[in-house]
Amino acid sequence: MSTKLPKDSVGIVTPQSYHFDEPLELRSGKVLSSFDLMVETYGELNAAGSNAVLICHALSGDHHVAGYHSENDKKPGWWDSCIGPGKAIDTNKFFVVCLNNLGGCAGSTGPVSINPETGKHYGPDFPVVTVRDWVKSQVMLSDRLGIRKWAAVVGGSLGGMQVLRWSISYPERLGHAVCIAAAPKLSAQNIAFNEVARHSIISDPNFHNGHYLEHGTSPKQGLTLARMVGHITYLSDSAMRSKFGKSLPEFGGANFGRELRTGKLSFGFNVDFQVESYLRYQGERFSENFDANTYLLMTKALDYFDPSVDYEGYLSRAFENSHCKFFLMSFSTDWRFPPERSREIVNDLLKAGKQVTYLEIESDSGHDAFLLPIPRYVSAFSRYMNRVHAELNGEIPQAQNSQPESDREVTNAA
Amino acid sequence: MSTKLPKDSVGIVTPQSYHFDEPLELRSGKVLSSFDLMVETYGELNAAGSNAVLICHALSGDHHVAGYHSENDKKPGWWDSCIGPGKAIDTNKFFVVCLNNLGGCAGSTGPVSINPETGKHYGPDFPVVTVRDWVKSQVMLSDRLGIRKWAAVVGGSLGGMQVLRWSISYPERLGHAVCIAAAPKLSAQNIAFNEVARHSIISDPNFHNGHYLEHGTSPKQGLTLARMVGHITYLSDSAMRSKFGKSLPEFGGANFGRELRTGKLSFGFNVDFQVESYLRYQGERFSENFDANTYLLMTKALDYFDPSVDYEGYLSRAFENSHCKFFLMSFSTDWRFPPERSREIVNDLLKAGKQVTYLEIESDSGHDAFLLPIPRYVSAFSRYMNRVHAELNGEIPQAQNSQPESDREVTNAA
Repeated sequence: MSTKLPKDSVGIVTPQSYHFDEPLELRSGKVLSSFDLMVETYGELNAAGSNAVLICHALSGDHHVAGYHSENDKKPGWWDSCIGPGKAIDTNKFFVVCLNNLGGCAGSTGPVSINPETGKHYGPDFPVVTVRDWVKSQVMLSDRLGIRKWAAVVGGSLGGMQVLRWSISYPERLGHAVCIAAAPKLSAQNIAFNEVARHSIISDPNFHNGHYLEHGTSPKQGLTLARMVGHITYLSDSAMRSKFGKSLPEFGGANFGRELRTGKLSFGFNVDFQVESYLRYQGERFSENFDANTYLLMTKALDYFDPSVDYEGYLSRAFENSHCKFFLMSFSTDWRFPPERSREIVNDLLKAGKQVTYLEIESDSGHDAFLLPIPRYVSAFSRYMNRVHAELNGEIPQAQNSQPESDREVTNAA
Repeated sequence: MSTKLPKDSVGIVTPQSYHFDEPLELRSGKVLSSFDLMVETYGELNAAGSNAVLICHALSGDHHVAGYHSENDKKPGWWDSCIGPGKAIDTNKFFVVCLNNLGGCAGSTGPVSINPETGKHYGPDFPVVTVRDWVKSQVMLSDRLGIRKWAAVVGGSLGGMQVLRWSISYPERLGHAVCIAAAPKLSAQNIAFNEVARHSIISDPNFHNGHYLEHGTSPKQGLTLARMVGHITYLSDSAMRSKFGKSLPEFGGANFGRELRTGKLSFGFNVDFQVESYLRYQGERFSENFDANTYLLMTKALDYFDPSVDYEGYLSRAFENSHCKFFLMSFSTDWRFPPERSREIVNDLLKAGKQVTYLEIESDSGHDAFLLPIPRYVSAFSRYMNRVHAELNGEIPQAQNSQPESDREVTNAA
């Protein structure tokens, strides 16, 4: 490992592609006859094959969850704050696996891949995939890697929804479900924001009904707008206030994030406030690196997620056969998936008689908090994962943990 | 009045245009050498000229605040629920005036008007107008109508901001300021949503830098998206849940507004959920009836509003010379301008030693609540306005009301 990289990093990592020739029948009824999954792993699988942790990514994530692809990388993987030697998910203890989900645009089969049946990009013909389909493909990957049972399946946001699906559909194949900043299903408001994002992509004249690659173009304006809307929902009002507003006590206190870009109003329609240029920049940068069809697929997977649908609307019944222990966390200013939504899951888990630990973290950072190194969050996460590891080694007898601990908050999870 | 119209309606009304040849210097430094204001009035101005009430409209409002333009109109003016004979603002008692603000697209001088200097539509050359400019033009209208002092100036949302400006800049010219569901200035999140709206309009290929009228087109896609985003911020999450989700107790309870349009998932990118088709429909209908340049102007007026800016950030100082009494209301689930924002205004009014009555209304309807006939809201509004009228008639001695009543809630305002 290079001396240039931080000591608690997994270092330089190399993704690996796995090809699957077995057909995958999707929830829509369509079948992918073959597919590839792009995967990164960190740490070592132990002899018993029992120390593996699966990370499920969210809307715009991918397999590159920790470390660096080269010494020149400016940024590490998207959850590097929580994964590495000595970190919350300690790669000295666990074998960590993360994959780019089907329909993604970072190497796994998706709209930018070549459809073997036509020799052209899938584009808009890539089938709509659901959380259930992703988990099905993740099970196939587990088999390929020789992992019969994950010590834990872990994810935030849309990733947390995959964690719930694992616990419901493959109860024997995970020991712990760690579900962070998620919801049992989207609300109408969540769906509405996704619809605005989709509509902005679809109505971009460069979208060409999804066939933009064939036209040598990209609906960048639409994708920029989609990301701008999304970004607002990831940040809390308070996060924006502190990010874009100096607190000016000599001027009557905080300015509510109304910091001006040039110090004065333009009296025109260009950006006046820093928050505007920040949003445009984030949106534009994203639109250069992400595939619009993938964005559509990911938002639909979010909208469609609702495990209660097979149980007449009763989520608790969905969990009846779950075997794993559950750890949920939520963040106080997350208004995309607020703590109430995690508490719904907790209540249904308790109703189903499951063992659940739940923690609400005070944070100013909105939904994005789950990606940030917030001390109380990281420390609770670490202690929980350390307990998972101790359990594997027989240091904590199973019986000791067989009763539900709390329905709201556990301050000493270790 | 037609028998087809409701009895408590002001009936058929006819707008009237007022031409002003006096130049209006705007806050930007630009000057409108002449302009027109489109106005509606209801009720009769009394001999003393003391019973006039000015209504200030919000983002997409206009002068048509109550009654019908013809017997075939399906909908009355935008605040008909609160204005009419026997209603909260009782047209049997008050002479009610409402105008379309400068920059609007409903008859007052704005981007769709002909610029007398060029003979062409103003389009994007119409100057950026601010709340201060609007109130300045409203003062000119008051002079024209012979109204020296308004019994009350009333408005919700952006309209409430105009009310605050009146109380600060023209303290002698109003008796009461009624400011509903407003804020002392936008937060970074508010500005961010406005920026998304503007960016979606400006990046529409049919926008042509604002010269779309000359190109015989309109940036409808951009305006549709802008309105969709706006609409989400007007409705609360709970309003969406009840609007788009049947409560199905036999199916595990409420479905969080996830009502499907056709009863099943499409596994495509067309609308699946009712909330999606509702938003698209609202956006598209709006884009056919509203001018995109006006939308840009209105959102900038919102962003720029901050009366504390002339007082080193201290809003309380802005109110130092105010003479009127203040009545503020806010709504519990309004997340665009939540109750906290009204409380900020109330606190600064109290700091400035002003008389203020404040009421927080429980409502599921988000920001839109101020336009709805919510019983507690309408009843408090009525009682306050009745007191305003009683005061005019000397039925309540001024001294009796000279002390602040409450800084939070007054249940019996009469």
